Amino acid sequence: MTSATNSSGEIPEAFVAVDWGTSSFRGWLMSANGEVRAESRGSEGMLHCASSGFAPVLRDHLARLGARDGTPILICGMAGARQGWAEAPYLKTPTRLDALHKGAIRIDAQGDIRILPGLAQARADQPDVMRGEETQLLGVTEPDFTGLVCIPGTHSKWVKIEAGEVVAFSTYMTGELFSVIAQHSILAHAVEPAGSSPADGEPFREGLATALAQPAGLTASLFRLRAAQLLGFEQRADGAARLSGLLIGTEIADALQRHGRARSLRLIGAGGLGRLYQAALTAQGFDVTAVDAEEASRRGLGKAAINIWGAQT
Amino acid sequence: MTSATNSSGEIPEAFVAVDWGTSSFRGWLMSANGEVRAESRGSEGMLHCASSGFAPVLRDHLARLGARDGTPILICGMAGARQGWAEAPYLKTPTRLDALHKGAIRIDAQGDIRILPGLAQARADQPDVMRGEETQLLGVTEPDFTGLVCIPGTHSKWVKIEAGEVVAFSTYMTGELFSVIAQHSILAHAVEPAGSSPADGEPFREGLATALAQPAGLTASLFRLRAAQLLGFEQRADGAARLSGLLIGTEIADALQRHGRARSLRLIGAGGLGRLYQAALTAQGFDVTAVDAEEASRRGLGKAAINIWGAQT
Repeated sequence: MTSATNSSGEIPEAFVAVDWGTSSFRGWLMSANGEVRAESRGSEGMLHCASSGFAPVLRDHLARLGARDGTPILICGMAGARQGWAEAPYLKTPTRLDALHKGAIRIDAQGDIRILPGLAQARADQPDVMRGEETQLLGVTEPDFTGLVCIPGTHSKWVKIEAGEVVAFSTYMTGELFSVIAQHSILAHAVEPAGSSPADGEPFREGLATALAQPAGLTASLFRLRAAQLLGFEQRADGAARLSGLLIGTEIADALQRHGRARSLRLIGAGGLGRLYQAALTAQGFDVTAVDAEEASRRGLGKAAINIWGAQT
Repeated sequence: MTSATNSSGEIPEAFVAVDWGTSSFRGWLMSANGEVRAESRGSEGMLHCASSGFAPVLRDHLARLGARDGTPILICGMAGARQGWAEAPYLKTPTRLDALHKGAIRIDAQGDIRILPGLAQARADQPDVMRGEETQLLGVTEPDFTGLVCIPGTHSKWVKIEAGEVVAFSTYMTGELFSVIAQHSILAHAVEPAGSSPADGEPFREGLATALAQPAGLTASLFRLRAAQLLGFEQRADGAARLSGLLIGTEIADALQRHGRARSLRLIGAGGLGRLYQAALTAQGFDVTAVDAEEASRRGLGKAAINIWGAQT
C-alpha cells in the first residue's frame, strides 16, 4: 500500500528525508529551503523489509518521489535497528540533539544514503531506548531548549532536555497496554472496540483523575472498571474512555515524579490522542506547545541534513 | 475430566461441600466433625455448565462421592453468579463473615442445595466484587479476627477485616496481566514461557524492589524490562521472574497504601505463588500465616454449614 503526491517547484531538490518505522515508510523530497516537494508513503516498514529487503523498497519510493540520481538520502527510525537495514548504534545519553548526525551510518550502496542513530539510556537501573523519536526531538527544539517533551503513542516517550542536551527519558507502554488489555483480558467484556462515550468526556477525565490521585493503583483500577459495570455504576460504552484515562493518567503521574515539572512542554502528536494529552497536561499547569509528529520528523531530518551536507545542498 | 477418591470412616457424613469456580468443580463429602470422607474434582466449571446445565454435573459428582440421598449440599463460587446456576446476590460490605450463610439462596430442586453469596463493595468510587474468596476468608479467620488477608492469583484480593467484619477490599489483575503481557505484548520477546531463572531469584527480587520503590512506574518498568535485554543488562531467561516481581511489587505497594499495615496477615495459597508472596510479605515486616486455598474453602464451607444446619447434622 503506497501513495505519492508531487508538487512542482522552482527551488531545486536538496535531499530525500525518510522516516522508516516498524510498520510504515514515509518519504519526502525536500527543497533546499525546507519545503516538501513530493511525498511517498507506504506500509513497507522494517517488519516487511526484513524479509523482502530494504533497497528495492527505497528505490520504488525514490521513483515515485521523482528524485534525481545522486540526491542524498537521510533516514531515521527502525531501519537503523539491529534487525533493520543496517545498524546505526545508539548514541548514549546524555547527548546533544544537534550532534545526532555524528552518529549516522552510511549505507554501502550507490549514492549517499545515511541512517540516523537512536538514543540509549545505558544505565542498568534505568535502561531505555528510542529510535525515530530522537529525530522528532531535534525537530521540535531549539539548540538551547530546556524543558520536557512528551511523545504519546504505542510506547509513549517523556524526555528531559537541558540546554539542548537529552539528559533523561522514560518510555511508557500506554498505547500497547490499552490494546492488549482491551482485547485479551477480562476487560474485553467491559470495553467496546468503538466506545460511544466521547474520548475526552467524563469517563476519560474520571479515569485520569483516579490515576493521578493514586498512580500506584493501576492494576486495581483496571479490575474496578469491570466491577463498576457489574454493579451498575457505569456503562460498557464508557469503558474505553475510562481505560484510556487510567493509562494516560498513570503515565503522566509517573513522568512528573521522574522528570520534575518544567515550565515548557513540547507535545509531539496532533489528532485525537494529541488533544487528549494536551487537555490533560494543560490541566496540570503546563504551557503546552503541540507539534504534528510527521512535521517534527521532517524538521529533524532537515536539521540533521544541513549538519551533514551543509545548507547549500 | 473428573477424579474421585473415597475413604471409609465410622463417622457419618454431614454434608457435601462444593467450590464451584469459573473453570473447575471441587466437591467434598464431609463428616460431622469436619473431616473429608471423599473428594471429587472436575473441570466442569461455570463456563462449561452455562451451556450443559449445572444439575447433571452435580448429580455425577454426588454419585462419585457416594453421598446418600438427602445429604445437604453447600456451594460457593461462580455457580452463584448471575450467569451461573442461580444468582446468590452479593452481600454488601461492611459485612460480618459469620453472617455469610444468611445470604445463601436455596436451589429449587429436590433435596437441600444452597449457594453462598459473594461480596460487593458497592461504592461508586471503589467498586469491587468477589465470589468464592469470601468463603475462604470465613475459613481462615476467627470471629474476632482483625488484620489483612491476601489471596494471590489471577485476580489477587486484599481484604481488610476488623473484628470479624470485612470493611474494605481491593482486587488486582496481577496474574491476568502477567499472562496477557507475556503472551500478547512486545514483552513476548523478553519473557520465556518457562524462564530458566528461579522464580524467587535475583530478577524477581529486583523487580519487586523496583515496584515497591516506585509503584507508579509500572508501565515504564515494563518497557525497561525489554530495554535492559536490548542493552545487554539482562538475559531473556530472567524476564518472567522480573515481570512477576514488578507486578507483585506494584500490588503489594498499593495494597499497603490502601489498607494500611496490619500486624497480622493471613495468606491464602500455598505452592510456588504462595511462597513468592510469603517471602515478599515477610520482607515487608508482616507476621504471615499461610493457609492452603482448598483447605480455606473447605473450612469456610464447614463453618457456614454449621451456621445453616447446626453442628449435629
